[in-house]
Amino acid sequence: MAASCANSLTSYKVQAASANFPSFTLPPYSSIPTKDFKISTSSYSSRRFSSGRSSKSLTTQAFFFSKQKPKEYSRPSKVQEMCVYEINEQDRGSPVYLKLSPKKENSLGDLGPFTNKLYSGNLQKRLGITAGLCVLIQHSPETGNDRFEAIYSMYFGDYGHISIQGAYVLHQDTILAVTGGSGVFEGVYGTVKLQQISLPFKFFYTFYLKGIEDLPAELMGKPVPPTAAVEPSAAAKAAEPHAAVCNFTD
Amino acid sequence: MAASCANSLTSYKVQAASANFPSFTLPPYSSIPTKDFKISTSSYSSRRFSSGRSSKSLTTQAFFFSKQKPKEYSRPSKVQEMCVYEINEQDRGSPVYLKLSPKKENSLGDLGPFTNKLYSGNLQKRLGITAGLCVLIQHSPETGNDRFEAIYSMYFGDYGHISIQGAYVLHQDTILAVTGGSGVFEGVYGTVKLQQISLPFKFFYTFYLKGIEDLPAELMGKPVPPTAAVEPSAAAKAAEPHAAVCNFTD
Amino acid sequence: MAASCANSLTSYKVQAASANFPSFTLPPYSSIPTKDFKISTSSYSSRRFSSGRSSKSLTTQAFFFSKQKPKEYSRPSKVQEMCVYEINEQDRGSPVYLKLSPKKENSLGDLGPFTNKLYSGNLQKRLGITAGLCVLIQHSPETGNDRFEAIYSMYFGDYGHISIQGAYVLHQDTILAVTGGSGVFEGVYGTVKLQQISLPFKFFYTFYLKGIEDLPAELMGKPVPPTAAVEPSAAAKAAEPHAAVCNFTD
Repeated sequence: MAASCANSLTSYKVQAASANFPSFTLPPYSSIPTKDFKISTSSYSSRRFSSGRSSKSLTTQAFFFSKQKPKEYSRPSKVQEMCVYEINEQDRGSPVYLKLSPKKENSLGDLGPFTNKLYSGNLQKRLGITAGLCVLIQHSPETGNDRFEAIYSMYFGDYGHISIQGAYVLHQDTILAVTGGSGVFEGVYGTVKLQQISLPFKFFYTFYLKGIEDLPAELMGKPVPPTAAVEPSAAAKAAEPHAAVCNFTD
Repeated sequence: MAASCANSLTSYKVQAASANFPSFTLPPYSSIPTKDFKISTSSYSSRRFSSGRSSKSLTTQAFFFSKQKPKEYSRPSKVQEMCVYEINEQDRGSPVYLKLSPKKENSLGDLGPFTNKLYSGNLQKRLGITAGLCVLIQHSPETGNDRFEAIYSMYFGDYGHISIQGAYVLHQDTILAVTGGSGVFEGVYGTVKLQQISLPFKFFYTFYLKGIEDLPAELMGKPVPPTAAVEPSAAAKAAEPHAAVCNFTD
Repeated sequence: MAASCANSLTSYKVQAASANFPSFTLPPYSSIPTKDFKISTSSYSSRRFSSGRSSKSLTTQAFFFSKQKPKEYSRPSKVQEMCVYEINEQDRGSPVYLKLSPKKENSLGDLGPFTNKLYSGNLQKRLGITAGLCVLIQHSPETGNDRFEAIYSMYFGDYGHISIQGAYVLHQDTILAVTGGSGVFEGVYGTVKLQQISLPFKFFYTFYLKGIEDLPAELMGKPVPPTAAVEPSAAAKAAEPHAAVCNFTD
């Protein structure tokens, strides 16, 4: 897969560079000396949150390394719409509902860490995962519209990640803030609409992204309109190489 | 109230559009097909975090929908100062202090989810709520200056929200980061000064906001100088239609 | 120390102003009336999260006050690389591993609040602390590569703070998003590479920062290449005035 990943990333770089020439340059992540440092093995293994293994670099981030060190970057302000599906396939032990409030019913004080799978809007590609925390703000037994403050990220394999914060309200669509990103999302800002298709299994997101270069084509396929019946392609579910982004997050 | 809300938002749009013509256009939130999808009723009702009701769109977000799909937006860099009051009226069960640390005294490991009411700086309008999490970082029994890492959002009804992160230190003013926003705060960045007026009841915030169009007048009224005696107007406390922003968050 | 702090900040301001003239102006934090308000002493002392002391302004923030109220700011897009060390000297009771998941082994549901010390990349200056929360996303006993979602800030004394969000994966380097900042980091965006040198004691970060004026020289010293053997200078460990930024966070 490494070869095909390199190819696909190279072709994205070429495509993006020609589309945006001359402003397109990725950040100079390799410009400080990092390659030779030694790693200790610590016996203090329980907290932040270690065991006795040596550290290794994520080879997948090599894509973002560059020898040049340009001094100025443009920050595009056009909006790019990108759609993704978040799907809970019940194989990640998520979500966990931490009933921490002293009250009997769900109430402020309860927390909900979660992690689900992430697919492209056309359901042809496995992208990665979501990861984060929901803080229950308000339990509404009469309406069912429980409100959470959601703080999480979406991971897209070699393409990087997007961090998100805002309201998650049961049975309602909401618009959250994009607070930052890495990789092809480095410097991103904007918003994302969260639509609940089939609770608690399927969510459809429409990002309105600014501040970044043109996104790679495999993230921007025509989205399947969200219905409760939608399913990722079998190849995407199996994360076959042609149906997953490079080094998809898992 | 719907009619008056529509009016007030329309007049804001007109005002903002004329003030900033020709760069003012809100994001094209309606440009993907969302209206026809079917909603399932899930029997899996306990986690992330559902009950058996059908989803509905927040009609309040219709304001941000637009038929146009412009390709470029400007990002204003002037600073707008906006003041708000966060007031704990002791009717939201907030805050909850989660004594999770294994130590007897308050210490790292304790968490404090919270949600309070939000009023405009002139105390004439109910805006919405705050919602988020305080992580206790350091308990200082000798000085009382307990330090928390605060991660939360402020909600302004139809106007959207602002996400915030930084230090909350008892008996000290701090400056936090604005990490993102939605609605009229889409694309926002900057900082916010948090002043404690009367612990744990009243907080006064001064935002220094950039990256957004001119804010609506009803958010920008002349602030009442913060003292322990300040109170929202009776109409604002009652969230009467003329004393609350449209679809104020509650 | 106050005098030397004032001197060092003044010289930074002069340096930065001449380097970036005419766009350099710090935000007008003092432009709303804050100096005369009275503070109540609340008897409601347990939550959000008070005891009976009067509030005082952080004098350290006076640096950022300014009488002018300019209407426009530039937002530089050049990249500034800044390196810092996060070191756990085992004197802050950090991290705390909250075993909240119902499962026996570490799993989704566990949380890890933490706070460590922060030193400049050349290990000559104590800067402040880190503060925040790790959410365990995935426990991988076979590889040891436990994944956390990390949401935290770094504090730099009078210089302000940077907020960060992204993946923290044991024994791997990751790239996180910079979601905002205050002080000299007001308006910042970009990314940060997190390298684990010696778990759980030492972390080396390389920031790629945009949107801000030239950073002060004492934050930008030539970094010591990260190895397990690195140690802050004795003066920096002791936070002696010449070996700490002004009002370093502790």
